[in-house]
Amino acid sequence: MALEVYWGSGSPFAWRVLLTLEVKRLTYQSNLLEFSKGEHKASGFLKLNPRGKVPVLKDHEFVLSESLAIMVYLDRKYPEPPLFGTSAQETGLIWRAIMEIEAYVLSAGDKLVRPLFFGQGLDETDKIQEAAATIRRELKRIDTELDGTAWLIGKQLSAADISLFPLVQMIVRAAGKDAAKPFNFELLPLDKNFPNIAAWVKRIETLTGYERTYPPHWR
Amino acid sequence: MALEVYWGSGSPFAWRVLLTLEVKRLTYQSNLLEFSKGEHKASGFLKLNPRGKVPVLKDHEFVLSESLAIMVYLDRKYPEPPLFGTSAQETGLIWRAIMEIEAYVLSAGDKLVRPLFFGQGLDETDKIQEAAATIRRELKRIDTELDGTAWLIGKQLSAADISLFPLVQMIVRAAGKDAAKPFNFELLPLDKNFPNIAAWVKRIETLTGYERTYPPHWR
Repeated sequence: MALEVYWGSGSPFAWRVLLTLEVKRLTYQSNLLEFSKGEHKASGFLKLNPRGKVPVLKDHEFVLSESLAIMVYLDRKYPEPPLFGTSAQETGLIWRAIMEIEAYVLSAGDKLVRPLFFGQGLDETDKIQEAAATIRRELKRIDTELDGTAWLIGKQLSAADISLFPLVQMIVRAAGKDAAKPFNFELLPLDKNFPNIAAWVKRIETLTGYERTYPPHWR
Repeated sequence: MALEVYWGSGSPFAWRVLLTLEVKRLTYQSNLLEFSKGEHKASGFLKLNPRGKVPVLKDHEFVLSESLAIMVYLDRKYPEPPLFGTSAQETGLIWRAIMEIEAYVLSAGDKLVRPLFFGQGLDETDKIQEAAATIRRELKRIDTELDGTAWLIGKQLSAADISLFPLVQMIVRAAGKDAAKPFNFELLPLDKNFPNIAAWVKRIETLTGYERTYPPHWR
């Protein structure tokens, strides 16, 4: 098989790549690594990515890591449907959206999710509340942008939607944990606090092949 | 004038955009904001970027922020010389390099540079040394990759080089500060510790138009 993807259940970065493969209707070999068994730190995998991180894409002898790099590679090699815009302006806006997701949503999401999923730093409530405030502000902004439009940028699904979606799902899951209850984050229910984002999540969940991308251990 | 750029002296992100404009031999109006006067938080500029951050590019009525988004936009609109590769593989490798710079060099650089430039957290020596160790590791990796080759990816200057260069210059400047002396970072002199990177820096410094991109307050 030409395309092989190495991923891990629950990695938002790997999820981006799986969504890209499905949206482009590509056939691929799925190699699900078990983080709990340290398979992402095993010597065989470290040869593919010395950083020991998923996702990794293998296309015959060509090996690539970093989720956004893989998405760009796939989009360039398999242009339909185009995920990075069809004009210079659209491309620029998609990348602005992606880089704002990386700079603001991702880092705050990490500070929220890590304590709630793994219990690390759960007593540093100020830091957690600060991260939640950033997430609320960013989701509010995105919710406003999604008012009256199906997708973040332009008239079709783009790499901006795919980049954000797994982070939103991860944040929703973290905010629903028992450990989150004392905090009163005002993130859930999503359809009450961020109705346009909730509708957008549903839209992506109905994409063909979506079920194959869903983290197995979340079921 | 069609293209206008808003930037600030010493912003590595703004520097990327200036280098891109120069490399593509574009004519642009340069709007240098004075951070010390808060010009990046003034209402006029906040209309262009509500986050109050540089760089911002204005192309007639089209306004764009986020350095990498601006670089992609310019590359798409003015394709010569191509900065994001000429094949799917090269494009993928350039983006991997960029995303690794963002994920590893940038965050560690920030943790090193902030204390040394502004004195913030200068007493948290463990954190500073940890950031310096990450920077040494990443620069070592990059120095090895530059062995026998002029540019990070492929046979010509790319967006990977442009993305990294201002960060290296910022790190070098920080490591040369008096406040850095007690730390013994083993970063300087660059040509002793990272000879290939030192040669690569010199290569970029001789690009046409480079002098126009150099932070005025660094002179």
